[in-house]
Amino acid sequence: MSERGAVVLLSGGLDSATCAAWARGQGYRLHCLSVAYGQRHERELLSAQRVAESLGAVEHLMINVPLDSFGHSALTAAIAVPKDRDPGQIGADIPATYVPARNSVLLSLALAFAESRGLFEIAIGVNRLDCSGYPDCRPEFVSAFERLANLATAAAAQGQGSYRILAPLMDLDKAGIVRLALSCGLDLGLTWSCYDPQGAGAAARPCGRCDSCILRAKGFAAAGVSDPLIAAG
Amino acid sequence: MSERGAVVLLSGGLDSATCAAWARGQGYRLHCLSVAYGQRHERELLSAQRVAESLGAVEHLMINVPLDSFGHSALTAAIAVPKDRDPGQIGADIPATYVPARNSVLLSLALAFAESRGLFEIAIGVNRLDCSGYPDCRPEFVSAFERLANLATAAAAQGQGSYRILAPLMDLDKAGIVRLALSCGLDLGLTWSCYDPQGAGAAARPCGRCDSCILRAKGFAAAGVSDPLIAAG
Repeated sequence: MSERGAVVLLSGGLDSATCAAWARGQGYRLHCLSVAYGQRHERELLSAQRVAESLGAVEHLMINVPLDSFGHSALTAAIAVPKDRDPGQIGADIPATYVPARNSVLLSLALAFAESRGLFEIAIGVNRLDCSGYPDCRPEFVSAFERLANLATAAAAQGQGSYRILAPLMDLDKAGIVRLALSCGLDLGLTWSCYDPQGAGAAARPCGRCDSCILRAKGFAAAGVSDPLIAAG
Repeated sequence: MSERGAVVLLSGGLDSATCAAWARGQGYRLHCLSVAYGQRHERELLSAQRVAESLGAVEHLMINVPLDSFGHSALTAAIAVPKDRDPGQIGADIPATYVPARNSVLLSLALAFAESRGLFEIAIGVNRLDCSGYPDCRPEFVSAFERLANLATAAAAQGQGSYRILAPLMDLDKAGIVRLALSCGLDLGLTWSCYDPQGAGAAARPCGRCDSCILRAKGFAAAGVSDPLIAAG
């Protein structure tokens, strides 16, 4: 078991929460980072808080970074969230919910956080299979960022260590992610996936019709378990 | 002359202002991005505003991104700014003014801005010679970010264009930067370099003793011109 710390990017969604639970299972102390970027599903940040607590994170930083200043995404601007798409269609194109350069921004912030804490591992819950087709969920993106991290930082330049980007979900589908979460003892009822919450605050309910709800439902169905978030509703 | 737009990272310092003036001289419409990241020399943002106006920027976005949440730098935390260092010593080490992953964060934000505007060029005023030894001012860092940008984004993945990071100051020393600024008609009295301003707001004065003041003074002296910011004081 490692005794090291890792920065974990924690949106509060199924994937990032599973990634955090995996990292905890590997023995990492968790330094979680969540970003309020003007997402319409700000509800996920409440989940991030609950997940970080449930996993015993040693630190959970939540910062505001106004990506909605740039607009251009259904998640940050007055653009309709696609609904009721065929699961087979999801991932075949890059939908309106793509947020420009989001994972580059998030990983850069995670890198700043890691370097400031003397940590060299950053975990992110990206996966290439059930990822809505976002380009910044691909393995070549993650590798390119890892390379950047080792050129960008004083800690690497001074030989204190090498940065590693951990992407343990990369090759899992949603069913595999659900199974991994359960094997790590994560309470998936704490997580939040919906892009377009119905209602406000803690009382919000998932829409059930956006790509993220559809992928989540597909994952639970294929894993043969019921979704505690829905069951509780 | 290009009729295209470019995103320009504009801190308000000598280098970024010269980079912006250069881009303007190349015919780019300027979409300037400035970031309030908790820097103790927030005074530079007033300069950014004045420079953007003087260059006729079509857009100037100023956003808050709290890098001071992470601390760890003399520019964002209660750590002393090094003073009175020998100019020959500056750049030989990585000083306390290094901000973890700052240029990675700034370029990622610029990339988000560029993609949201359909632009493919991002200009940054980094230079490797008189840069205080920061690792994220080196050409290999800039190349690695350019590579990342072309993997990270929907626009690149969909073949709409290729991102280019323009770093026109890379091989210039401070004297060369001063000369370039003057040849572009930039009013250098609008810019601000000091890390540790004495006094508040528009009335603040440069300390004259931090690395950034020393490098600036060296540049003006070597270019054989007087600094209008100091002359005005």
